[in-house]
This record gives sequence, C-alpha cells and structure tokens, in this order.
Amino acid sequence: MTQSTQTADTTRIVIAREPGGPDVLDVVTRPVAPPGPGQVLIRNTACGINRPDQIERLGFYPAPAGAPEGLGLEVSGHVAALGSGVEGLAVGDPVCALVAGGGYSDYVIAPAGSVLPAPAGIDLADAAGLPETVLTVWTNVFEIGALSPDETLLVHGGTSGIGTTAIQMAKAHGARVIATAGTAEKVALCERLGADIAINYREADFETVVTDAGGADVILDMVGGDYVQKNINCANAGARIVSIAFLKGSRVEVDLMRMMLKRIVLTGSTLRARPDAEKARLTRAVRETVWPWIAAGRLAPVIDSRFALDDVRAAHTRLDSGGHAGKILLSC
Amino acid sequence: MTQSTQTADTTRIVIAREPGGPDVLDVVTRPVAPPGPGQVLIRNTACGINRPDQIERLGFYPAPAGAPEGLGLEVSGHVAALGSGVEGLAVGDPVCALVAGGGYSDYVIAPAGSVLPAPAGIDLADAAGLPETVLTVWTNVFEIGALSPDETLLVHGGTSGIGTTAIQMAKAHGARVIATAGTAEKVALCERLGADIAINYREADFETVVTDAGGADVILDMVGGDYVQKNINCANAGARIVSIAFLKGSRVEVDLMRMMLKRIVLTGSTLRARPDAEKARLTRAVRETVWPWIAAGRLAPVIDSRFALDDVRAAHTRLDSGGHAGKILLSC
Repeated sequence: MTQSTQTADTTRIVIAREPGGPDVLDVVTRPVAPPGPGQVLIRNTACGINRPDQIERLGFYPAPAGAPEGLGLEVSGHVAALGSGVEGLAVGDPVCALVAGGGYSDYVIAPAGSVLPAPAGIDLADAAGLPETVLTVWTNVFEIGALSPDETLLVHGGTSGIGTTAIQMAKAHGARVIATAGTAEKVALCERLGADIAINYREADFETVVTDAGGADVILDMVGGDYVQKNINCANAGARIVSIAFLKGSRVEVDLMRMMLKRIVLTGSTLRARPDAEKARLTRAVRETVWPWIAAGRLAPVIDSRFALDDVRAAHTRLDSGGHAGKILLSC
Repeated sequence: MTQSTQTADTTRIVIAREPGGPDVLDVVTRPVAPPGPGQVLIRNTACGINRPDQIERLGFYPAPAGAPEGLGLEVSGHVAALGSGVEGLAVGDPVCALVAGGGYSDYVIAPAGSVLPAPAGIDLADAAGLPETVLTVWTNVFEIGALSPDETLLVHGGTSGIGTTAIQMAKAHGARVIATAGTAEKVALCERLGADIAINYREADFETVVTDAGGADVILDMVGGDYVQKNINCANAGARIVSIAFLKGSRVEVDLMRMMLKRIVLTGSTLRARPDAEKARLTRAVRETVWPWIAAGRLAPVIDSRFALDDVRAAHTRLDSGGHAGKILLSC
C-alpha cells in the first residue's frame, strides 16, 4: 500500500445466505483488506442497487471468479488507500466506481481503472447511482448499438435506473428517444427527462406506436419475452436491438425472417463479467464523453429512494415491488 | 446509347407463370431494350442459378421494384452496348455481373457498378457462377461477419454455391473453416476445397463437433430452424451469426440468454433488395480483394452441372433435388 488514511479494521458487507426474497440478505462483518497493486480502497458514502443484484440474490447470476464477497456493483465515497502503481488518484479524493461485487459495504476494493472522479454538481451520495447505469448505457447504446444523433432510440423500462440514464444520454447525444413505462406517472417522468414519445405499455401497443412514429434504429431491451418479436417488427432497416436482461424470459418464439430482410442486428451483453481492462477502457470513454454532459446539466442520476445499509432488505423489497422510478441507493 | 455492337431484336427470358414447381417456368420472348444511362447491355454466355430463384419461383420472394422481368441474378458474357456515362468498359469486353432480375436470358441489362471483368483463368461460362455467391459471401462473412484470419468460420451447406465459395474465400483469407454437408461425397468435396473440418450432419451433431473444436467466431447459416439454437450454443464469445436463408424455417424457438452472456450478434441480410450504389460498393471491394484470389488460383467456381436455357425446368428440378454440389448454370 503506497498511501492510506486511517481506516477501520472491519467493514459491513451484505450477503445472500441462500437464494430467495429480500429476507435472505444478511449484513455481516468482514476485515478490511488492503488494496493490491492497481487497486483502490474506497470508504463508501453510498452504493447503488441494480437489477443484477436481485438476480444474484435469487441465485441465478453467480459472481464472477475473483469478485469481492457480497452484493453491490457501484459505489461512491472517498479514496481511503491506494495500492502500488495507481496514478491520478490521491487519498481523500471523492470518487465513484464500478466494482465486481461487495459494493453494499463501508469499504470496498475497486480496480483503479474502474474509478471515476465524483462529478461536480452532483451530491457525492447520488454519484453512487452513476457507474453501473452510465457504463451499461454507454457500452450497449453507444458502442454496440452505435446510436447516431439522427437516429431514434427505443428504450424499454424508461424509468428504471438504466432507462432514466439512457433517455438523458441519448438526448444529450442529439438522438430522438421513445420510452416505454407502466404508469401515467412513469410516462410523465420519461417526458420530463426528455423522451420525445413516452408510451404507457398497459394502454397502447408499443409496436404500433413506434412503427407509426417512424420506427426505431436502436432498441435497448431488458424485457425479452414477447417484446423480442415486437422489437423486430418496429425496428427500422439496419437497426440494432440490444438485450441487457430478460425480465419476461429469454426463451422466446420468434420469426427471424424480418431480421434478415431488414438486416437487423440482435445482440446483448452484460457488464459484470467483462475483464478489468475492458471496464477500464469503458470508464475512460465515459469520463471523456459522458462526464461533460453531467457538468453541463444534461445528465443527472434520478434517485427513487435511499435506505440505510442495515435496511438493505427494505431496499430490495422496494426493488422487487417494481414501483420505483430511478435508482434505489444505500447509505453507508 | 453511346456504343453498341449489332444486337438481336429479341431475347429469351424465363418467367414463372404462377407459383409452383419447375414446370411453372416458361421461356418467353421479349424485345431487347437499349441500356439507359449508367447501364450495360450484356450478351449472355451463361447465367447462374441461385437459391433465391427457387424461392421466387415458389412465389415467396417478389422481385424488387424496377428489376428486369424474369428470373436470374447473375450472368457472364460480353458487353453488347453501353448506356451514357459508363466508363471503364468497352463493347466486346468479357464480363460477369450481378443483375436484379432477368438473368436467365440472351441479353440482360446490368447497372455498370455491378459489372466485373471476367477473371483471367476462368472459363467465361463458369464466371456466371461467381457474382451472386462471391458478393453474398463477401458482404455476409467479411463485412457483416468481419471474419478475421485468426478466427473460425462455420458454414452450413458447405457444398452449395454459397458454401463452396465461402470455404475457399475464408481459407484464402487465412481463417480456419468448419463446414457441414449431408453426404460422404459432399464432406469430401468440402475437404478438397480446404475445409479444416467437414461434418456430415446426418451422422454427427455439428454443435458438439464445433464446440469440441474450439467453437465458431462467424457462422454463415442458410438453414435456420433448430440450427439457430445450435449455432448460438457452439458460437464463441463475441461471435457473429449471419442468416442468409431459412431452408428449415424462420419461425424458431430459441433461448437468447447465451446470446447475451456471450455477446453474440445474430443478424442476416439479403443482397437483391439493396440499392445499386450499395451493390456497386460491394462490387468494387470484391474486385479489389477477391479477384486477386481467383488470379492466384485460390478461388474457382465449383460447377455442378450445365443446362441449355430452354431446359431451365430440368435445371430447377436439379436444384430442387438438393443433390447438386456447387453451381448449376444455364448456357445462353
């Protein structure tokens, strides 16, 4: 360890003691490990809750090998200690970071390449809601989807953490945005965030609305199920449909003829399993392109609610309810 | 018309008088039209038969608007007349060309951008088997699939016109090739053409063989049906699966989870419906990269059989039988 401030000996972390509902989550205590070469120890201010945490709690999304123990993929806080070879960061710096696990905690270790400066103009606690969603939207909509400013993005789950971020980032990029959501309040939130068209999927068939509006060029989908065919049907020639989750199931019946005839790309990705070097590359790209949007007031995390770390079961109950809009945060 | 040689007043063409089997094909006579601006009139030596011709005969693949009347997507022959504004070609030049229709004929009009010089070292008649297959493999395997020399291509239908061309082009590029075919003779042909592994799909499960061989990075598929899931299963992380037809059907049951987890791209394309400018771009790329492979003896059309134009029904009967290996040609 080349630099450090005084740190506690122990940290709370959150584990799922077995697959199940929110009540399988336990807050337990572990020793604080020193950061290794190229690593940063962060004293967390807050951490963000993400959909993959729920899947992991349910036992369907095992942590990749070598990930820190416990749930949690993104944090904000201050640098508490630097491992050898880390440049451009100093103890005490306010930061936010993507972590491979263990983010629901007082202290967590992050690879230096996944650490971003806390953006000016955003509460440090709120910055915990940025890394996972911004990096996910960046890689799926901007890199894989290659959204161009003269194109239309269709984003499902418009008021999820991913959805609220995708709407703002695509608008900052200059693209047209169509979002779907499940209540009038959520539709109104999508519109406030800049969506050109927001569809209440309980009241209208999104395939028809999107088709009538000229079709979509990039579709960010976390729904799956019967949305897969509908996405293909309302996609324009050359469209890219990117799946980041399958809340309605990944086993689908689909007719791929229109995929071929319209030369549509169906693909998907997950962030967590990617190697550190790849996450570092994404982090640099986000810092260069997306951080200025935050500074310019064009992107801010939408916070649904905050819970104390010890109330993590209540936070996951909120996530399970589907009633949230934006990010659920834990205060550490 | 800026230049022309003496041409006949009429040409035979082949039409499907209704959807159906080979006996719906009729040879009829039409006036020869002069080439318009940017067009070339070709006196055909031969024309190639392709799978889309069969689909069109069956009534499922209507010709794009503005296409010449009649079946047939590729020809070889001599330039008979040049429309205004055509550069780099002269009357009498031996050429081969992709056409939007009407290729089963004595004379056909091609956009100048889709005309290639007949390659040295190949019989002019055999050159009729090149344009559709070479352009299809180029755009799907090399452009959309972005096959790299250190990767593995899996090509189904290894002894089809597309398959024999894909094997040779991928080997000329330096890639590893795995091909599937349905008889021992066809497997042997795939191997003679350079396939590193050829699988008799009636005797072995290609998914298992490909997986055991290290997986595929690009898959060229004209089968569809249950191959879609098997392709996903034996594809490597980051693989591109490109569908160019669905001989076993495009309506499939598929689990897309592994597509997301492995970040696989599922896509497809057809050549015929693309705009002339796009075909001209592809033609230039093929002339630059693939024509030298022909000159170097690394790629030659594999000819299954030749029929007189008037025997087009027998030629389509051969196509329908599935017993052919390589291209079926019509002599004009």
